[in-house]
Amino acid sequence: MASLGPNEPLIGVPGSRARLDTPALCLDLDAFERNIAAMAALCRDRGVALRPHAKTHKSLKIAAAQIAAGAVGVCCATIGEAEVMVRGGIKGVHVTSPQVTASKIARVIALAGSPHAGFTVVVDDPENLAALDGAARAAGIVLDILVDYAAGHHRTGAATEEDVLLLARAAAAAPGLRFRGIQSYSGNLQHIAERAERVAKAKARLAILAGLVERLRRDGIPVEIVTGSGTGTHDVDAEARVFTEMQTGSYIFMDVDYHRALKDGRNVPPFETALFVQAAVVSRNGAKIPGGYVTTDAGLKSFATEGPKPEVLSGAPEGSLYAYMGDEHGKLLLPPGSAVPALGARIELMTPHCDPTVNLYDAYHVLRGDTLIDIWPVDARGKR
Amino acid sequence: MASLGPNEPLIGVPGSRARLDTPALCLDLDAFERNIAAMAALCRDRGVALRPHAKTHKSLKIAAAQIAAGAVGVCCATIGEAEVMVRGGIKGVHVTSPQVTASKIARVIALAGSPHAGFTVVVDDPENLAALDGAARAAGIVLDILVDYAAGHHRTGAATEEDVLLLARAAAAAPGLRFRGIQSYSGNLQHIAERAERVAKAKARLAILAGLVERLRRDGIPVEIVTGSGTGTHDVDAEARVFTEMQTGSYIFMDVDYHRALKDGRNVPPFETALFVQAAVVSRNGAKIPGGYVTTDAGLKSFATEGPKPEVLSGAPEGSLYAYMGDEHGKLLLPPGSAVPALGARIELMTPHCDPTVNLYDAYHVLRGDTLIDIWPVDARGKR
Repeated sequence: MASLGPNEPLIGVPGSRARLDTPALCLDLDAFERNIAAMAALCRDRGVALRPHAKTHKSLKIAAAQIAAGAVGVCCATIGEAEVMVRGGIKGVHVTSPQVTASKIARVIALAGSPHAGFTVVVDDPENLAALDGAARAAGIVLDILVDYAAGHHRTGAATEEDVLLLARAAAAAPGLRFRGIQSYSGNLQHIAERAERVAKAKARLAILAGLVERLRRDGIPVEIVTGSGTGTHDVDAEARVFTEMQTGSYIFMDVDYHRALKDGRNVPPFETALFVQAAVVSRNGAKIPGGYVTTDAGLKSFATEGPKPEVLSGAPEGSLYAYMGDEHGKLLLPPGSAVPALGARIELMTPHCDPTVNLYDAYHVLRGDTLIDIWPVDARGKR
Repeated sequence: MASLGPNEPLIGVPGSRARLDTPALCLDLDAFERNIAAMAALCRDRGVALRPHAKTHKSLKIAAAQIAAGAVGVCCATIGEAEVMVRGGIKGVHVTSPQVTASKIARVIALAGSPHAGFTVVVDDPENLAALDGAARAAGIVLDILVDYAAGHHRTGAATEEDVLLLARAAAAAPGLRFRGIQSYSGNLQHIAERAERVAKAKARLAILAGLVERLRRDGIPVEIVTGSGTGTHDVDAEARVFTEMQTGSYIFMDVDYHRALKDGRNVPPFETALFVQAAVVSRNGAKIPGGYVTTDAGLKSFATEGPKPEVLSGAPEGSLYAYMGDEHGKLLLPPGSAVPALGARIELMTPHCDPTVNLYDAYHVLRGDTLIDIWPVDARGKR
């Protein structure tokens, strides 16, 4: 077990939020707990199960909190994440990406054969299905699989309904496999900014998915699990009852992207921003030159950079804008005439894309108001 | 000590490069060793010292290899990197970013007071200088400092020559500090694509820096160290002999960015691409739809995303292009009519911006030709 880092001595010290060693990934525990409760209530009300995606948080503590609130398990994007979850005592782990190389298949079999309950993995190719079947039989186990359907996104997943049917039939006939259901994740819909368009497209995909499930059932293939959905379409998806379970992940944290996509007046998000990065001002000489700014200690190695930029939550003059300035530095552009933050001043920033941002940190700094109350490891950080 | 991961059993197995668990960060040891030797020879020939930037590699093994080839120590961007290096036995550690919060200053003092040789840190603000002086005196030590000069880049560093003089005089007069010299890093020049422009701008900065050093000396302040430079301007900087030592970091690996900037016909780079990521094809259903592609297992969590995209080195048809497709997946767009790579096929990709890419991995897979011969931890990954 690694050390919890330089902030460990501050746990439980009142007002310690102002004294954190920076940059620090922080979790507002009040907002986080409200997010956990809101999604749990929504799924309970709609009669749909929740198996939230752990690729968002990679944390055993957070997985346990989700399960304590009623989740049936967690999803993982990699076998490395699944290993951390299963070995950490989390039950109901589902791997959402195909595992195809000999090395990955061996890891799937080792995990499925170890003490667990409800481990499942997707398949989207007949060759991979045959390889998994062979490996399971050689190990003397039966592996629970779901067929991945591309769902318009086409990242992974069988491309056509016919392909899904072929895979489901092959799985049902394979002695080493047990067909459990369908996965269909429309990742391309989650971040559509206009709610009307997002809802319409989600409903169209749901209709196709419902037809496919019906077709499989008519074909004599029982479909126990239909899994998918994301934070951006969670309400439409839960309402429709095509999915038997939801994979939504980002709802626990939210981020700049989701914040923008969900906030359009007609759709007040039921989730709050619970994740942020606290940075410190480390240089203020930039305030002396035209286009004044200060330099913070959070840069390219502290935020996911493929989406929008971090947004200032607190600690800097209203209207300050963040820009990247190398591996370990960020520029905080100050509005003309505003006061220059002090050297060492703490700036709190809403994170861009939460999942890859979390993956850059070893731990969450768990805050209740202004006090650091715990440090939770990002247990599966970097695990593939 | 953490496990070296799923590829540990493959160390020393002939042909193991084709069987790696993916995605894997890989180091071509032959090219890496030639890069180390080429920069060492260049600095030796020009009579300038080399203190390469360890933020690029964050590895004790690589720092030791650089020192074995003649480097006088390593630079670090964060105190967390410096802690790993100093505690790992690396001498001559210089911290290139100001350390200003109480927590960071305490870590600087703890490190400077522990057994070491030649630990230095920059300062760019009178308030920070006074705080470091006070902390050093309280600990009963003398802290070696360099004054950081903004050098047109203005990320950190004193904004004007007058400010540098003030800081140098204050340091020389502070009982807890020892003034050692000047740092001047022109990060804004390293990636200028046109060599003529890059050289002209580097020479202009060198002339300013030479004038500043002369002015300090006339003022009776000895300037023992002048440190800076980067891979993009290393040749001009080494030639000019204004710097007493070079901070170049990326030369050991190279990346898509440097590869493009240095390759313009008039400037054959003396460094080779030694770093790459090996990914595997995990889904090929995308080959069935228009704009055919296959899906690999290396996505947003496997590459730095703020710069150019990864470029295919081997394993896919000539002309294949990589695109991001979520946290753990990448799309490999195939040229029309080309053969579709097999499921599980290995694709090797030149990394975008090497420093933040390395920071996403726990280890280097060290290859001699087609054989994995060692696994080196990224010791300071995520350390701040």
